[in-house]
Amino acid sequence: MKKAAIIGGTGYGAIELIRLLDSHPYIELAKIISQSQHGELLDETYPHLATYVTQPMQELHIQQLIEEIDIVFLATPAGVAKEIAASFLDSSIQCIDLSGDLRLSSSDYEMWYQKKPASEALLEKTAYGLTEVFQEKIKQANIISNPGCFPTAALLGLIPMLENNIIESKGIMIDGKTGISGAGKNSSAKTHFSTTNENVTPYKIGTHQHIPEIEKYLSQHVEESSVRVTLTTHLIPMTRGLMCTMYAPLQQDIDTADVIDLYKHYYEQSSFIRIRKQGEYPSTKDVTGSNYCDIGAYVDKRTNQLIISSAIDNLVKGAAGQAIQNINVMNGWDEKTGLSFLPVYP
Amino acid sequence: MKKAAIIGGTGYGAIELIRLLDSHPYIELAKIISQSQHGELLDETYPHLATYVTQPMQELHIQQLIEEIDIVFLATPAGVAKEIAASFLDSSIQCIDLSGDLRLSSSDYEMWYQKKPASEALLEKTAYGLTEVFQEKIKQANIISNPGCFPTAALLGLIPMLENNIIESKGIMIDGKTGISGAGKNSSAKTHFSTTNENVTPYKIGTHQHIPEIEKYLSQHVEESSVRVTLTTHLIPMTRGLMCTMYAPLQQDIDTADVIDLYKHYYEQSSFIRIRKQGEYPSTKDVTGSNYCDIGAYVDKRTNQLIISSAIDNLVKGAAGQAIQNINVMNGWDEKTGLSFLPVYP
Amino acid sequence: MKKAAIIGGTGYGAIELIRLLDSHPYIELAKIISQSQHGELLDETYPHLATYVTQPMQELHIQQLIEEIDIVFLATPAGVAKEIAASFLDSSIQCIDLSGDLRLSSSDYEMWYQKKPASEALLEKTAYGLTEVFQEKIKQANIISNPGCFPTAALLGLIPMLENNIIESKGIMIDGKTGISGAGKNSSAKTHFSTTNENVTPYKIGTHQHIPEIEKYLSQHVEESSVRVTLTTHLIPMTRGLMCTMYAPLQQDIDTADVIDLYKHYYEQSSFIRIRKQGEYPSTKDVTGSNYCDIGAYVDKRTNQLIISSAIDNLVKGAAGQAIQNINVMNGWDEKTGLSFLPVYP
Amino acid sequence: MKKAAIIGGTGYGAIELIRLLDSHPYIELAKIISQSQHGELLDETYPHLATYVTQPMQELHIQQLIEEIDIVFLATPAGVAKEIAASFLDSSIQCIDLSGDLRLSSSDYEMWYQKKPASEALLEKTAYGLTEVFQEKIKQANIISNPGCFPTAALLGLIPMLENNIIESKGIMIDGKTGISGAGKNSSAKTHFSTTNENVTPYKIGTHQHIPEIEKYLSQHVEESSVRVTLTTHLIPMTRGLMCTMYAPLQQDIDTADVIDLYKHYYEQSSFIRIRKQGEYPSTKDVTGSNYCDIGAYVDKRTNQLIISSAIDNLVKGAAGQAIQNINVMNGWDEKTGLSFLPVYP
Repeated sequence: MKKAAIIGGTGYGAIELIRLLDSHPYIELAKIISQSQHGELLDETYPHLATYVTQPMQELHIQQLIEEIDIVFLATPAGVAKEIAASFLDSSIQCIDLSGDLRLSSSDYEMWYQKKPASEALLEKTAYGLTEVFQEKIKQANIISNPGCFPTAALLGLIPMLENNIIESKGIMIDGKTGISGAGKNSSAKTHFSTTNENVTPYKIGTHQHIPEIEKYLSQHVEESSVRVTLTTHLIPMTRGLMCTMYAPLQQDIDTADVIDLYKHYYEQSSFIRIRKQGEYPSTKDVTGSNYCDIGAYVDKRTNQLIISSAIDNLVKGAAGQAIQNINVMNGWDEKTGLSFLPVYP
Repeated sequence: MKKAAIIGGTGYGAIELIRLLDSHPYIELAKIISQSQHGELLDETYPHLATYVTQPMQELHIQQLIEEIDIVFLATPAGVAKEIAASFLDSSIQCIDLSGDLRLSSSDYEMWYQKKPASEALLEKTAYGLTEVFQEKIKQANIISNPGCFPTAALLGLIPMLENNIIESKGIMIDGKTGISGAGKNSSAKTHFSTTNENVTPYKIGTHQHIPEIEKYLSQHVEESSVRVTLTTHLIPMTRGLMCTMYAPLQQDIDTADVIDLYKHYYEQSSFIRIRKQGEYPSTKDVTGSNYCDIGAYVDKRTNQLIISSAIDNLVKGAAGQAIQNINVMNGWDEKTGLSFLPVYP
Repeated sequence: MKKAAIIGGTGYGAIELIRLLDSHPYIELAKIISQSQHGELLDETYPHLATYVTQPMQELHIQQLIEEIDIVFLATPAGVAKEIAASFLDSSIQCIDLSGDLRLSSSDYEMWYQKKPASEALLEKTAYGLTEVFQEKIKQANIISNPGCFPTAALLGLIPMLENNIIESKGIMIDGKTGISGAGKNSSAKTHFSTTNENVTPYKIGTHQHIPEIEKYLSQHVEESSVRVTLTTHLIPMTRGLMCTMYAPLQQDIDTADVIDLYKHYYEQSSFIRIRKQGEYPSTKDVTGSNYCDIGAYVDKRTNQLIISSAIDNLVKGAAGQAIQNINVMNGWDEKTGLSFLPVYP
Repeated sequence: MKKAAIIGGTGYGAIELIRLLDSHPYIELAKIISQSQHGELLDETYPHLATYVTQPMQELHIQQLIEEIDIVFLATPAGVAKEIAASFLDSSIQCIDLSGDLRLSSSDYEMWYQKKPASEALLEKTAYGLTEVFQEKIKQANIISNPGCFPTAALLGLIPMLENNIIESKGIMIDGKTGISGAGKNSSAKTHFSTTNENVTPYKIGTHQHIPEIEKYLSQHVEESSVRVTLTTHLIPMTRGLMCTMYAPLQQDIDTADVIDLYKHYYEQSSFIRIRKQGEYPSTKDVTGSNYCDIGAYVDKRTNQLIISSAIDNLVKGAAGQAIQNINVMNGWDEKTGLSFLPVYP
């Protein structure tokens, strides 16, 4: 039984980690750490955890963690995580950072996050936790940068097609749609029910920090120059769920059926990727509460475009679920351990 | 490992049973039976079950079930269930009926359901599956009538107060609020998104078949005459969740704190009942996806009324979850077996 | 053409007044006043008003208002309104206060709002703006206290029954359900989408400031002692809409049909009250965006209770619409002036 | 006062026409015709129309209409409309067809609708009712083919850019998002609340009948060859509202500010088009219940793409509102007549 701690215990990422870890057979959640609310009981904020919570949230003590804990999940905001992660560099702690701090090169991080980047030493030791694609690196790493929610859905849909030279590396459009929980727990106009309900709201057009993240990891899969993508993101009036509808120019004449076969082959060993059959496309509700990423595809012969639809639960495969999946891989456990439940439907 | 079958495999009750049984350690779901869709794969209707489903739904063969199966869940409509349940009377099958067929006396059933009632022989052998209250009878029964969703929330809130003579048995008002999944999977004006979204819709006022069910089981807890309740039900624009807000005249001068203590004491041994502390009330979201029933109370001294708020997930504690809880009790397993997960929040 | 000003221009009450006044034939909205945001353009906060807004919001200058303006709508928070309203006491300004400041007696206000009450001089000159019931007083008043949203729905349903001695004045239960816009424009956990969506949340049980308001105006309609009601309120995952489901002990043996006839007779002259026929009940969506209050009733012979269901749009009949209806009555215009549009459906 | 009739009186298009015509100063709605429900009162299906409806729906009698009526709105399904419209060819009736029957060339109609097309005589006399762009033709026509909901939003965003050679005519991607009312009044899995709530559902990918409609009217604005677009459509869990997020390769180096100026200039005379300022994008809620189309734009210099976001209420500008706007133009009235109300917000 490994001992885990969550740092940043009061956001939605942490709350979902708590739910998922509760049924993990090899991990015991030993500490929930919150700098802003230590001393408080978590179920005062989250009554759905009534009877679950037995001890108050704790302050952060790095040395104590290094001594007592095996696994640390960083569910802190960008900017905070990189400092904490650096403290574990020389320890044996397995650290999963759910923020964006360790996802980009220093220069890109500075430009898109407008914060000071993590040290090169830290970035070099960090593996990007898109489990299905980077699991060899994940197995050997102690520090994982857990992917952003849009990048998870986008990369899982695009990488197999780019690797197989099905689509061009230029002219890829990603239309992202996310539930409001993606905007976090803080109250603002952006998360106000009366503002967001019965509404579709585009946001951060052209400026979303997930753009360079998607481009960085796509570029690792084509030889030549760097890939550029266009990403728009939209708030959808639902709590959970994220979809990327993607458009990419075809490099070759291919049928939908063959594209689907390619996907199936690519993800043959991946328990959490489900490919829809021809003529069917995933809905976000098909994956709610689960770690699945469902993918559908359509070759538009009229316009020579491949249309890809990729759906995840932003809090599971897009955050806490993938974090646990990475921990499973790092520890040599089956990637499904503690994650093999069906979606909650309807 | 016990073998289970679900009969009526395509409604929401069945779908939730499938989700929950999938993580039950002692039950294997061996057969999904559907008279209307046998031969089909369930994931054609429900793509969220993709990769889970490996064999088509089957026709109903009673004798085969008796030979091969240990546990049968009846997720069929009222009217159908009682015929099937009767076939198992002399077998060793443990049968849980999720319909209303076995919940009322013959005369009440005829009046409120306007169908021919089950045989007296069947009714006599049936235990009412409100697990927390009737577990002694459930342990000894082979046939369980699983409670309706409103009765579950209402009875769990009212019974401790009636038993302890806190409230009068006359003048109880129950204001029921349910998510649209309570109206089932069939498409109609009542379940149409454009009709029900951004809407509160009262329905079946004074005529809901859950009225006699609540009255029957409340009456078993007061000596004198029969209890009468007023129940209204409202469709709420959400998928899951059910709340009963209840009003009952106080029999004695008592404080909120004492009422809360009484509840805590009454449900001391019950894993799934959580009592809110003074000044707090449950939201339906606090129990989503879980088998919990959360209860809050307030003594309104100004009007001498007890106000009780009781929240469940209508598809879990109000249907499939309680069915499995009953099976656990019938088999001597911990009632939490396969049901000990946290709510999905947010 | 009368000139109007709105004070407190950035809340939902003001925004709805702007929408409704825009099509009023006899009122010109001359000023929008905001102490916190004067100098700003309202469409920066509310882009749906783009092209409508031509001048910035202004500071409050009482004397200037008295000289230039005929009608003032106070859409300010409780506590602020009573100070401003007092300034108009000796002027010819018609002032409608949408806050709770002028609704209660001094002692009740102090107890339930926990603020210093308005002066007796102001309270004496104020008429309560439940248009259908108090129009004679409204015609003669210059200062109107516009009713709260729950009291509007509750009183319109209860008063005809109390006046006609159909129901008892004791044992009335009001189960209130409101859309999230009722919680206002400010961001908080209570208005957060992820918290409130897919959820029913009871709040302020036993402590809602609308309780004494309902009781005060009900009591004016029965000779004997004062009426006491039990009110609970619930947040429903919708933006607009409010329903009171009410339960009251019958004083006499009467049929549903006769109750409905009584309502129809009582509201014969009232353009905005629509009585549902026997067996039908209003949904909140039936009145969305309109000034209607729809009422349905059912005599529960089994329990000797009258069940009343009353639905309004909380921002229209529950706030801005009724405010304009009152202005119409005060000026001798048809009460429908500027308000005679159909509900927005679906 | 012109007399109008609606044929197909029970769908959402008709219901919205009734709401809007009710406040039109020059049009009297004289007849509501329904082949399937004639003899019934419309408020039996739609209680929000209680007190509005005074006469039952009628059967269709073409000759009677020609004699008594000036304006006919066809709110019938595709396939039915073209037969009725043909009957008015030699009459003086102004006919607006809200279905897709008259929008495409015969060959395209046959291919995409898989029905027999309208006669050439009828198609030749029909003007396409995208009011802002085709008003000269609309003024001279008696028969109008009212645009589809997605084409309205897409064309209003794309045409000014194509006409001004800002974007290429190849490689245009349109990501469409619509509220569930776009799927109509009929109950099906696609409109079931429990299926569609908390969900984003792609549908008709590559096969939507709005694809050839968009292409046909875009092609009329570029000299050379025909334009091809990629369109995907998604059901969003909201009742009303439609957004097209569009991506098009830039033909020239241009700044966002200049693009916005071009839009403003193009729509200078158009009362219902509102262009967002730089850095802001429309939400569907900004136009709910109104005839506005709000447009925002962003030049993505990184990828040399123009991103356009265009939002309408699918039932107003996307159907009934635009139909009335066309009637206004045909009769020489101000296009805003009866449509100049503000959006319903929040």
